[in-house]
Amino acid sequence: METVLPTRIVDTSNSPYAKLRPVPIEEVELKHGFWAKRLKRIREVTVPSQYELLEKTGRIYNFRRAAGREKGGFQGLVFNDSDVYKWVEAAGFLLASRFDEKLHSLVEKVVDDICAAQDEDGYLNTFFTFGNKAKRWSNLARDHELYCAGHLIQAAIALHRATGDQKLFNAAVRFANHILRVFGPDGKPGAPGHPEIEMAMVELYRETGDPAYLSMARKFIDNRGRGIAGGDVNRIDHKPFKELEEIVGHAVRSLYLNSGATDLYMETGDKEVWSVLERLWNNMVKCKMYVTGGVGSRYDGEAFGLNYELPSAQAYAETCASVANFMWNWRMFLASGEAKYVDVMELTLYNGVLAGISLDGEEYFYVNPLASRGNHRRRKWFECACCPPNVARLLAGLPGYFYSISEEGVWVNLYDQNEARIRFKDDVVEIAQTTDYPWDGKVEILLGLKRELAFSINLRIPAWSNRTEVSLNGSRVNGDVKPGSYFRLDRTWSNGDRIRVNFQMEVRKISCNPLVYENTGRISLGRGPLVYCIEGVDNPGFDVWDLLIPEDAVLSVEWIPSLLDGVMVIRGEGYVADSDWIQDSLYRVFNPAGTRRTEFLAIPYYAWANRDPSPMITWVRSIPRLENIQK
Amino acid sequence: METVLPTRIVDTSNSPYAKLRPVPIEEVELKHGFWAKRLKRIREVTVPSQYELLEKTGRIYNFRRAAGREKGGFQGLVFNDSDVYKWVEAAGFLLASRFDEKLHSLVEKVVDDICAAQDEDGYLNTFFTFGNKAKRWSNLARDHELYCAGHLIQAAIALHRATGDQKLFNAAVRFANHILRVFGPDGKPGAPGHPEIEMAMVELYRETGDPAYLSMARKFIDNRGRGIAGGDVNRIDHKPFKELEEIVGHAVRSLYLNSGATDLYMETGDKEVWSVLERLWNNMVKCKMYVTGGVGSRYDGEAFGLNYELPSAQAYAETCASVANFMWNWRMFLASGEAKYVDVMELTLYNGVLAGISLDGEEYFYVNPLASRGNHRRRKWFECACCPPNVARLLAGLPGYFYSISEEGVWVNLYDQNEARIRFKDDVVEIAQTTDYPWDGKVEILLGLKRELAFSINLRIPAWSNRTEVSLNGSRVNGDVKPGSYFRLDRTWSNGDRIRVNFQMEVRKISCNPLVYENTGRISLGRGPLVYCIEGVDNPGFDVWDLLIPEDAVLSVEWIPSLLDGVMVIRGEGYVADSDWIQDSLYRVFNPAGTRRTEFLAIPYYAWANRDPSPMITWVRSIPRLENIQK
Repeated sequence: METVLPTRIVDTSNSPYAKLRPVPIEEVELKHGFWAKRLKRIREVTVPSQYELLEKTGRIYNFRRAAGREKGGFQGLVFNDSDVYKWVEAAGFLLASRFDEKLHSLVEKVVDDICAAQDEDGYLNTFFTFGNKAKRWSNLARDHELYCAGHLIQAAIALHRATGDQKLFNAAVRFANHILRVFGPDGKPGAPGHPEIEMAMVELYRETGDPAYLSMARKFIDNRGRGIAGGDVNRIDHKPFKELEEIVGHAVRSLYLNSGATDLYMETGDKEVWSVLERLWNNMVKCKMYVTGGVGSRYDGEAFGLNYELPSAQAYAETCASVANFMWNWRMFLASGEAKYVDVMELTLYNGVLAGISLDGEEYFYVNPLASRGNHRRRKWFECACCPPNVARLLAGLPGYFYSISEEGVWVNLYDQNEARIRFKDDVVEIAQTTDYPWDGKVEILLGLKRELAFSINLRIPAWSNRTEVSLNGSRVNGDVKPGSYFRLDRTWSNGDRIRVNFQMEVRKISCNPLVYENTGRISLGRGPLVYCIEGVDNPGFDVWDLLIPEDAVLSVEWIPSLLDGVMVIRGEGYVADSDWIQDSLYRVFNPAGTRRTEFLAIPYYAWANRDPSPMITWVRSIPRLENIQK
Repeated sequence: METVLPTRIVDTSNSPYAKLRPVPIEEVELKHGFWAKRLKRIREVTVPSQYELLEKTGRIYNFRRAAGREKGGFQGLVFNDSDVYKWVEAAGFLLASRFDEKLHSLVEKVVDDICAAQDEDGYLNTFFTFGNKAKRWSNLARDHELYCAGHLIQAAIALHRATGDQKLFNAAVRFANHILRVFGPDGKPGAPGHPEIEMAMVELYRETGDPAYLSMARKFIDNRGRGIAGGDVNRIDHKPFKELEEIVGHAVRSLYLNSGATDLYMETGDKEVWSVLERLWNNMVKCKMYVTGGVGSRYDGEAFGLNYELPSAQAYAETCASVANFMWNWRMFLASGEAKYVDVMELTLYNGVLAGISLDGEEYFYVNPLASRGNHRRRKWFECACCPPNVARLLAGLPGYFYSISEEGVWVNLYDQNEARIRFKDDVVEIAQTTDYPWDGKVEILLGLKRELAFSINLRIPAWSNRTEVSLNGSRVNGDVKPGSYFRLDRTWSNGDRIRVNFQMEVRKISCNPLVYENTGRISLGRGPLVYCIEGVDNPGFDVWDLLIPEDAVLSVEWIPSLLDGVMVIRGEGYVADSDWIQDSLYRVFNPAGTRRTEFLAIPYYAWANRDPSPMITWVRSIPRLENIQK
């Protein structure tokens, strides 16, 4: 193996307008905790099975075909190359975490097929070959060439950092240079129908230092709203980027564009760009995001809806949009150091993203409703298979999001059992987290240092934790431990220093802004970063859509190791108002069946639909306190 | 004036597969009742003000321009001619009811402008003139030429029947013949992006007896699903008509197509067509229709949603779709004689349609939500102004839907204060209805006959009336008076015979199939044909979205003559669970404000948004019986 670079996901090491830079994947090992178990499955099941499917569905074949290594027609959709690239990126992150000869050989084989398909002039897209060659760059709004190019570049950078790969990286650079020739300063105007190239170009600038890539990203962003990308809302091309007021249109496209713009901001410091990003973020978080962190509520156009248009049963909430939401917030956080962005990352990760993949690691949701009759099930693959490798690459890179560093010190963003060896200036700071997070709010952080060292440790206090206790070497730390902020511990640290944090992890009844009409009078249940749902299979005595939870219901938790790979369930007592289940018509005279007491059991939302099909609900009707009604 | 023909809306007099034929508009006079008041406003306010707006917005000017009578560019949208035609049709129906020199002169002036715009070859569309002439018939999917033609033909037939007009009628026939030359047996394949021409062609066949028009309608229907009309779901062109399984796509287009197909069925008896119509109707009524009769729940594409996709706050439910729903059900009823179709007509008329126009007769809803924060208001006009003249023509023709006849007798479809002189075979049957319907369920029907006459009187028993009493000349009539059927009284009738009907008109709490997720645990209120809603302006003490109605709430009614032109309101006692009104965020820990008793007042849905803006709700949360909870 060649020299390996730090595998940072978004390398802001030299970004003048970034507050933080990520701790590389290889410096953090998730062990024996919530995520270690999932990542093991990503490595052992998800990534290998996705490889098989990429082969089976002709996605890798398409490269061999383009290279003249196989004969036949192009298979699948025009953007299918991107699925292969995302898989390579996922594999790269896994290799950064732990080298694995078998996976590495597989990746090299795929990389060889990819690179063989590249044209002399650097162009690389398996659809626009042979008879379709003449159509290159002819329909930027629809053809996804820049989108696929962006994924190639991201995958190549990940692999370059993880394994020292030069082959794919050189191919990506050649393609990027080809794009510069076509769309650069002397080229024609360009803007992609599906953003993605922007992030990739900025990252390539970071990786190579060549400002031409940064300029290219800026040009692609500046060219929006000029009709090049389709001129429509769903392609986020209805307005110039800087004139966007509301977050609208295709959710993944919007969030990829915002991610790219955030990358651009971190390099250029363009305050106007930042203020657009803040405006769009506020609109999303305050008016258009599900309680799971899912976004893009509309089936039609896979798009953001109107403000407060957040239907549960007819939610779209594409898994890719959750991934994109996580990616964008990561960049917003690196730019600003503000905890609110990590709150959204954590929410989305544990709920919107994680529901996208089955417990066994080989089935996926594309669409993520918050209520179902049980007929919505994960599938092994999709004709448009953007989501499976997107989940894979996000989770494969997860260790890379746990910590970040600034000039002043270390930032602890996420909590889970892990051991980190963080290069901080000329030292290595070892951090061992011991915790049962997200099932328990207690986290112990043990420091390992070769010598005494003055720096700050910034602990993220999640917005959901109303009471957090922090102690250092057994003594309570006083200070303003505010939810939704970083709590800064500034001192000269010694080897063996021990921080204990205890986040309040009570069950929360969550209410929704009643402008979301259908959630009025309903509550959802949450605990720590997890949102819960109620699934029929756990509650055989009633239809979960008929459950009522009293306002003042006492809720308890129980750890059930045998259930769903081990989950903390929520138990409570409520009522069932058996629905007036009308057969074969929409309306009839109300004929209430009466109300009866029941016990109920709720599971984490991410775990639903992993057993036999049954109805599921996230927002449950609440009933007011009886004593108040009696007055 | 020339000889006037019976102004039947859909003239099935000679339709071999129609069970019934309509009683013409001029044989029925609505007097001093619910509808007479509204129709007076249609005549005095709506139709004159629409004329002004048609002029002001260039819609009539477009005809003068096309005729070379004025100079300038085409104004507005490509289908704007149709608004003028619908207005002429409305005026025709008014003239059929009662001749009015001023209105007639106005219509003649408009007709003169229309006819002057016709080309030598019969073509008539003001957009496709001058520079656009070459584009005629080039884009059937989008250009609405056949749609506008259909409205011209319908308007011309209405006016022909109402006033004996020959001028517009001849123009329509000439255009129809032009269409036959272009798309007929020797012509090119045709199918309209927006159906409408089908109904018109069948009606023109009925009016002229020329079977070429019927064949043309059939060809337009048979040509669907071949890509000619766009090939997409929203143009109902994704499948051949006979293969449609589910009612989907643009609601107005779908319902106009179904109306045309029903017309076709009544002439041809094609059983396959009928079974498609029944299938689509069942799907609509059982899975896709609002409690108001509104349809087309999706903003996007103005389309039917999935089964049970019936959001209240984000309802689309275009006024035109309600009009179309009424029109289609009228045809289904004429074909079958089944009361269930008139149930949908009545529901839609009193709720979905009537809400589309303000009490003062000059403002309109395009979109009809079932819940609002008060910001949704009627407007005087729209750039796409399809709804205002559509409501006008439906209501102007209302007398024409009250009765129908068969070989056996007279069918009483709708109830309201009216006097009818119905030509039945060689006799005239006079019927005087005395009633306060829809405010009261008592209807008295007094017969006037020149001689004793044996025939049946078929009384429609609305589906909502669970108990109906019928008496004849003071004696209770025994028999199976079933809701949702026609009750047949067969006898030899004498002058002065008096039927009294008493429909149960209790307040109904209505529940919804709980597959409409957001209506679970909610009820709506209805009484007779009316659906009620609760508007903030009547309930100043609380936010109507926060109201809870106990399952067993006792509801009373009160007639308030000064309110909203006179309405029967529903009063009750409920609770308010003041919403956790979250400012500036979507979610927070539930913090119930407690519950308090309140009185509330509900008004008919059609009357909402006629006063100062305030929130409105139709589906109110219900709470279970307390004694059951206490157990």
